[in-house]
Amino acid sequence: MNILGIDVGGTSIKGGIVNEKGEMGNTFVYPVNKKENQYECLNSLMKVIDEYLIKEDKKIDGIGIGVPGTVSTDLGEVTYCSNLLWERLPICKILEEHYKVPARVSNDANAAALGEARFGAGKDYKNLVMVTLGTGVGGGIVINNELFEGTDGKGAEIGHSTLIMDGIPCGCGRRGCFERYASATALINQTKEAIEENPNSMLAELATRDGAAHAKIVFEAAKLGCPVANKVVEQYVHYLSEGLLNICNIFRPEVIVLSGGIANQGSYLTEKVSKYLAAQSYGYPYSPKVEILISQLGYNSGIIGAASLLISQK
Amino acid sequence: MNILGIDVGGTSIKGGIVNEKGEMGNTFVYPVNKKENQYECLNSLMKVIDEYLIKEDKKIDGIGIGVPGTVSTDLGEVTYCSNLLWERLPICKILEEHYKVPARVSNDANAAALGEARFGAGKDYKNLVMVTLGTGVGGGIVINNELFEGTDGKGAEIGHSTLIMDGIPCGCGRRGCFERYASATALINQTKEAIEENPNSMLAELATRDGAAHAKIVFEAAKLGCPVANKVVEQYVHYLSEGLLNICNIFRPEVIVLSGGIANQGSYLTEKVSKYLAAQSYGYPYSPKVEILISQLGYNSGIIGAASLLISQK
Repeated sequence: MNILGIDVGGTSIKGGIVNEKGEMGNTFVYPVNKKENQYECLNSLMKVIDEYLIKEDKKIDGIGIGVPGTVSTDLGEVTYCSNLLWERLPICKILEEHYKVPARVSNDANAAALGEARFGAGKDYKNLVMVTLGTGVGGGIVINNELFEGTDGKGAEIGHSTLIMDGIPCGCGRRGCFERYASATALINQTKEAIEENPNSMLAELATRDGAAHAKIVFEAAKLGCPVANKVVEQYVHYLSEGLLNICNIFRPEVIVLSGGIANQGSYLTEKVSKYLAAQSYGYPYSPKVEILISQLGYNSGIIGAASLLISQK
Repeated sequence: MNILGIDVGGTSIKGGIVNEKGEMGNTFVYPVNKKENQYECLNSLMKVIDEYLIKEDKKIDGIGIGVPGTVSTDLGEVTYCSNLLWERLPICKILEEHYKVPARVSNDANAAALGEARFGAGKDYKNLVMVTLGTGVGGGIVINNELFEGTDGKGAEIGHSTLIMDGIPCGCGRRGCFERYASATALINQTKEAIEENPNSMLAELATRDGAAHAKIVFEAAKLGCPVANKVVEQYVHYLSEGLLNICNIFRPEVIVLSGGIANQGSYLTEKVSKYLAAQSYGYPYSPKVEILISQLGYNSGIIGAASLLISQK
């Protein structure tokens, strides 16, 4: 089985053929031309795919697409994607007519969760939730080995559940969403605030050295013993863990998989979070422990995740 | 098909035979004797059931039990029920051995949600979440006509997800849980505070008349135009709606069914909540509307819900 996985990003669209074992060979990249409208963009993408398929000399059995926006799984269209200004784009229909194979579209966080469940950190589990800590907080839910997306694919927006009602305004229109406190963007803001308040801290020094307050810096400074950075990290762990506790209490999955830049902190982060969750979990000490793992699929997780939309369960 | 539904409550245990259409005839009630330990209690209950079955002269095909506490669906036991001081009670095994039919146990809010999905307000929908606004806030999740309970039946604790991180302490050990703001208990507390601050309000007057600050009074006073009561109701709608918005964004069910005492306010409540949700929902205006309905099964919903654990999907 050969499934073409397409990972739509804000500046480029990547893709590749993935087999039923989640293995992938060569990939293609199409740098998005922002001057093109959505139909022109899709036409240009299809030309790149045509060339790729000729070069690979493989027949494909289906196409899976992951998009950083909202989709309609019922209609097979991209409902809205702010990065690319795609709106109500019937992407599945267009690709199906051109390639004569079934196509399926999903939100990129959902697709990534399914890929991780099939072939990555979640492959030994039937029930998992993946949380992507990036610009925002993305969520993907796998129940009984199947993706759960809600009506018309418009659920699983875990980043847009409240952590603090009436808190920090969110792009979604609400206030106090989880992603306003636990995304990489949020951590950068928390770090910047700490630097402003503590201009002589080691944290401030490292930020000056790097010319920016990356999320990485605050972990580096905390590990080096900077009390200011440590306080930022502890508060961030508090925000993140409270959001993950909600997932534990609502879904009680076997495992939560973390991905995105912040997840690169690995066990330094998961140990802190696991400790917090164990004692605070509903029904403790009788409730089953929820494992906190780091995603394994890495750079190509988007392509593999998108392809997995067409690969039936393990 | 005849399924015995058993609805365990804090002071009494009710039950009755329910058929595959959700229809029920006579019921029995066993008033719990608090002096009995859990095994004695179960023995006494079985004697009541034995008599009931002889009187009804019906063979049963299974037993479903709903319990106000945590359960282990894997072990078929009640993990912990604070009202009755039941702990690790292997209720399914004991009932299966005595009655020679399969038994299944679940949390009462979960069982009620399944009953409502099969035979009540949710019978035309495949995906629903039921929220019970009582002493606490109970949650039940039905996905694709099946109950979703999480690993070992220890999920679906929607009342124990944060509305306000670090907020009001909750019995579960966390702070700021949804149920601390949206339960009937919470509304009563909110009403009492308003009365204390406004002793000359119509709300205070009604409370004096009734000798207590029931949750009902605040709605009555608000409908009569009391501005103090109106403010309490609007704030309560804000709390409730924000919690329901989380459900919309995470599950995007077709419908949310409200039950419990507060749900008796009917359309007065659902209209306010629906208006709030429509505009605040993630992906608005493209996201599918989530209907807010009131439960229909009424007084015997616990028995029918418990029985529905053994009645396969519609």
